Amino acid sequence: MIGVGIIGYGYWGPNLVRNLSEIPGCRVIGISDLRPERLALARARYPSAKITAECQDLFDDRRIDLIVVATPVSSHFRLALAALAAGKHVLVEKPFTTTSEDAERLIEEAARRKLMLAVDHTFVYTPAVRKIREIVAAGGLGDVRYYDSVRVNLGLFQHDVNVIWDLAVHDLSILDYVLPMRPVAVTATGLSHVPGEPENIAYLTLLFEENLIAHVHVNWLAPLKLRKTLIGGSQQMIVYDDLEPSEKVKVYDKGITVTEQGAAAANGKYQLLVGYRAGDMWAPQIEVTEALGIELRHLMTCIERGETPQSDGIAGLRIVGLLEAATASMRARGRVIELDSTRWAA
Amino acid sequence: MIGVGIIGYGYWGPNLVRNLSEIPGCRVIGISDLRPERLALARARYPSAKITAECQDLFDDRRIDLIVVATPVSSHFRLALAALAAGKHVLVEKPFTTTSEDAERLIEEAARRKLMLAVDHTFVYTPAVRKIREIVAAGGLGDVRYYDSVRVNLGLFQHDVNVIWDLAVHDLSILDYVLPMRPVAVTATGLSHVPGEPENIAYLTLLFEENLIAHVHVNWLAPLKLRKTLIGGSQQMIVYDDLEPSEKVKVYDKGITVTEQGAAAANGKYQLLVGYRAGDMWAPQIEVTEALGIELRHLMTCIERGETPQSDGIAGLRIVGLLEAATASMRARGRVIELDSTRWAA
Amino acid sequence: MIGVGIIGYGYWGPNLVRNLSEIPGCRVIGISDLRPERLALARARYPSAKITAECQDLFDDRRIDLIVVATPVSSHFRLALAALAAGKHVLVEKPFTTTSEDAERLIEEAARRKLMLAVDHTFVYTPAVRKIREIVAAGGLGDVRYYDSVRVNLGLFQHDVNVIWDLAVHDLSILDYVLPMRPVAVTATGLSHVPGEPENIAYLTLLFEENLIAHVHVNWLAPLKLRKTLIGGSQQMIVYDDLEPSEKVKVYDKGITVTEQGAAAANGKYQLLVGYRAGDMWAPQIEVTEALGIELRHLMTCIERGETPQSDGIAGLRIVGLLEAATASMRARGRVIELDSTRWAA
Amino acid sequence: MIGVGIIGYGYWGPNLVRNLSEIPGCRVIGISDLRPERLALARARYPSAKITAECQDLFDDRRIDLIVVATPVSSHFRLALAALAAGKHVLVEKPFTTTSEDAERLIEEAARRKLMLAVDHTFVYTPAVRKIREIVAAGGLGDVRYYDSVRVNLGLFQHDVNVIWDLAVHDLSILDYVLPMRPVAVTATGLSHVPGEPENIAYLTLLFEENLIAHVHVNWLAPLKLRKTLIGGSQQMIVYDDLEPSEKVKVYDKGITVTEQGAAAANGKYQLLVGYRAGDMWAPQIEVTEALGIELRHLMTCIERGETPQSDGIAGLRIVGLLEAATASMRARGRVIELDSTRWAA
Repeated sequence: MIGVGIIGYGYWGPNLVRNLSEIPGCRVIGISDLRPERLALARARYPSAKITAECQDLFDDRRIDLIVVATPVSSHFRLALAALAAGKHVLVEKPFTTTSEDAERLIEEAARRKLMLAVDHTFVYTPAVRKIREIVAAGGLGDVRYYDSVRVNLGLFQHDVNVIWDLAVHDLSILDYVLPMRPVAVTATGLSHVPGEPENIAYLTLLFEENLIAHVHVNWLAPLKLRKTLIGGSQQMIVYDDLEPSEKVKVYDKGITVTEQGAAAANGKYQLLVGYRAGDMWAPQIEVTEALGIELRHLMTCIERGETPQSDGIAGLRIVGLLEAATASMRARGRVIELDSTRWAA
Repeated sequence: MIGVGIIGYGYWGPNLVRNLSEIPGCRVIGISDLRPERLALARARYPSAKITAECQDLFDDRRIDLIVVATPVSSHFRLALAALAAGKHVLVEKPFTTTSEDAERLIEEAARRKLMLAVDHTFVYTPAVRKIREIVAAGGLGDVRYYDSVRVNLGLFQHDVNVIWDLAVHDLSILDYVLPMRPVAVTATGLSHVPGEPENIAYLTLLFEENLIAHVHVNWLAPLKLRKTLIGGSQQMIVYDDLEPSEKVKVYDKGITVTEQGAAAANGKYQLLVGYRAGDMWAPQIEVTEALGIELRHLMTCIERGETPQSDGIAGLRIVGLLEAATASMRARGRVIELDSTRWAA
Repeated sequence: MIGVGIIGYGYWGPNLVRNLSEIPGCRVIGISDLRPERLALARARYPSAKITAECQDLFDDRRIDLIVVATPVSSHFRLALAALAAGKHVLVEKPFTTTSEDAERLIEEAARRKLMLAVDHTFVYTPAVRKIREIVAAGGLGDVRYYDSVRVNLGLFQHDVNVIWDLAVHDLSILDYVLPMRPVAVTATGLSHVPGEPENIAYLTLLFEENLIAHVHVNWLAPLKLRKTLIGGSQQMIVYDDLEPSEKVKVYDKGITVTEQGAAAANGKYQLLVGYRAGDMWAPQIEVTEALGIELRHLMTCIERGETPQSDGIAGLRIVGLLEAATASMRARGRVIELDSTRWAA
Repeated sequence: MIGVGIIGYGYWGPNLVRNLSEIPGCRVIGISDLRPERLALARARYPSAKITAECQDLFDDRRIDLIVVATPVSSHFRLALAALAAGKHVLVEKPFTTTSEDAERLIEEAARRKLMLAVDHTFVYTPAVRKIREIVAAGGLGDVRYYDSVRVNLGLFQHDVNVIWDLAVHDLSILDYVLPMRPVAVTATGLSHVPGEPENIAYLTLLFEENLIAHVHVNWLAPLKLRKTLIGGSQQMIVYDDLEPSEKVKVYDKGITVTEQGAAAANGKYQLLVGYRAGDMWAPQIEVTEALGIELRHLMTCIERGETPQSDGIAGLRIVGLLEAATASMRARGRVIELDSTRWAA
């Protein structure tokens, strides 16, 4: 039996607790939050759990093996570190930390203490994203040419992080999971439309050494909710629309054909040697299991077996590094920021 | 009666000739092209027109008042200049010229000779774009916050221009027409996926002095055709989807409300002062007239009355300046290019 | 404080209990079900409620004012009658009863005892349907010409009722609520594709004395989930798509114009006198409140004030009458069944 | 070389002539129409054709092998009969004739004279419908369970035929082409909303001896254009949406599974034995060739080789028989009309 304590019972906390409650072999021991009304809510729903305003009560509880940190990002580092220091495995909400340094520090601490450190990159546990990774890994797309994501909606304006840290974090973690290549530079532009508040619209480009480009549009001020990702490959292309009730992932057997020998030919003739291919489209059946449940069950297994989780601290560090670089670029009006990839060597 | 000669009977030429043929007070006098099979096609359809491989035949024809240049962009400057030199009014296909210098030279020549010089920015004559301009001009959106366009499809790969010059030219001309502000800098990223060929995917950001950002995604290698533009304003927002058979323009009475006095308040309290507004959506009835016909009738009127057309050479110059800057930025891995706005003072 | 007892904790029961729990002035006293595993689930979620296999325990509990019958339809009559006999107000799940006679009997019993008798026609409490009724009642559509609904999906095959009783019941209750007219005849066709099981596809037409027609397509064996209703009026038309995340209701200012004097003219000329009107489309903002909560709060108010609920037993009877007639028609290969409208005089 | 004469240059005539003009081995000899303005238009476009107000000029022209009758339906019989009498092959626009008797008379006349008699059921020549037939014929769907089509839009109100003859004719011809089974009875309901004019909304059900049902909703007074067909089979299901720019045909590997031995089991247990299957979706690549061109080339081949065209007079007769029966049912408030299938034995 793995005992769990959750710090933070705000927006995401209730989803974590609900899913944890349904996992056999897992028990929610305690929930802490600073707000009395949230504690009251937690108490009404989970009368048998320890409900407390003091997270220290959770650190001190010997029945607790895993601490889930679901507070605003500014407190992630401090709370995760304290949890590790108390000998607990830790799952931290996304985004992992506010700086790469903090992320590195947590990774070291967890390694030293042989504790599991995981980041809640929920999207990489969705059946749709796992199917995409499977298709990419099997070579179904051929060489990946581009990754383009639009993730926009109206609200919820955050006050402590900008829209990149809030929304692009999902795309960056999906990209990190699906593609084997790592970006070498980032450029981003964006704006805040509310004085004194973080940027609410942003465009990120990730540059790679390979002939590949990735781009993300995130926006809290859009009239529509859109969640559409295009992944272009040399053989096939994917459209992933997370808002589709079914057929979230569509694989298009489409593309261009380039007749190599044409490259040396005269300009006028070359045109004939680039062709278009339009074949069938295929939408693989996607399981409808809730990603958070899949993730939490995976983490339980990792704890039991001492294995490294898929979304470990190092994945979290890679994403934080990208978020930092993107924000720096955006604040420098789109200046290209080179990434120090040596830092990410897992 | 205005006589017209068309140079270039390839992809767009037939549409020009068909529309010109249906305008009362306008007569297609001649058509030239270098390819015998295109000439044969033109002859079959317009047996009474002069069909010739020599564009000089059109320049020399005294019945011709207007020359339409619908050839590849590399020949635009030379042909338009020759047409002006022959005393003809000129309409040039988009993109106008390959350099700003060429555009300026044509503008000067037309001004000196008091001839009309127009660029075929067809989209600014569509009823949908005109409706959007009308809404923006009437203040319906409040302050415009962002302009975001996605214009992607599979093919048609061009060999003489990159995807920015081929597709983003539409968005830049729409933006130029709809918004009163002019960008001050450009940053772009993009790639070619076919060795030796122009870039087939690109992302452009336009920066403004105002609290406004514009972004365009253009792509010849997409599995789907998408033509979706979001325009965010402080009061309302527009979604313009050119592929919708009806309801191309939707106006959303949605946005955020910021309570000003909250700005000075403590951090914790501020959060309550940003609210969301979700009101009705409204899709104005959009006329279904073909834009090219509207444009050509407008040009006939301009010629008759000696008026400046809406898409004149100066508009063409502004767009060419942006295309040049965007391409330069893209080839410098996204370096920000400042725009010399003095050049555009109309 | 109104005490509530729920009989049946299967598919819909948990939604009822969850909503009832959140209404101030309402308390869930007890839950009964015949299945031990459902009782265990209810007990885990509502440890303070009386959880019992015996519904008589609920009838006998003096703290209970309202009994909710959420069991299979075959037991509705018996349980509702027993609840009324025990002096309880009653809410019965849809479809109300298996026969009109049973419905009439319950209506009489409730009237005699001055108890509230309501039927859970949840859709008539949705903000979308209420908005539609409001538009129709305000004359926004002009004369209503037709009502067309498609309600299809894959599953869930029922064993005790056919697809008309399971799905068309929603459309019939919406129609009953939205339109002031009552149908005078029904014709239906349909089939079962599983031997020995109820019909899983059906088409119903309702005929009216007015120049109006209503039609419903219900289907458990469709590859897609569709929930689309068209309501045509002489002035405007509505498209109601319940699966749209927002803009569920769209009002089209479209239609035909008929120039009356044309009717006497010669045939050839008449054609000019029928015209088409295409105006703006408008999607009113629809509140996102859960319909079941709205309904239950309404019922609490009715109980407190002794008022008749919107979806009362008589509404339930009208719908059961239509379901009976439609099933009879379907089993007679589409024979038209005249409705005895005198029975429905409220 | 096959010479063609077209009678009727109204809405569809220009499409016929344009397509005929592009077929090698086919020549448009003459065009007739009663309206001077249509003749003027034909003359402008086809200066070398014989343009005449007298269709007799076409019957008398020995260069003409094939007469295409593209006039209002009321004149089809008379004109087609005259063309056959003049020894011409005949293609008649849909709907074929106003009565089955007329259709039979034309079939006999063509047979007697060994001339080709074809009906322009264009939809059965679309690549999408041909792909559907191919899938059905290969057994891909298993047993076909239902066919459901929605074909609605605003306008164009006809004055000589009702909406069934105008729009349902397409669905009936598709059904006739795609399925091997023939209906045995028809029931239909519908209304006219314009006094003195034909019905503008109708619902048809076709009944079969097999465990199959077909239904068509046609409507000239709908706010949206919809063209959506569902075809349910025991193994797979098809969604055919003719308005989709690509992916017009989607094949869903979905359905129910029924465990046979369960049929004899007790009622309570049976429920476990009906399951749902949800597999991949697949959209076969559909060619984008214009159907009318495919059809006309097919007819040219039939004339040359003396073969029977796919949409011959007998197919036309079957459809006219259904249209007659459906109209009769509709005017009898949905009375079931049994079809005399002996008449259709090809």
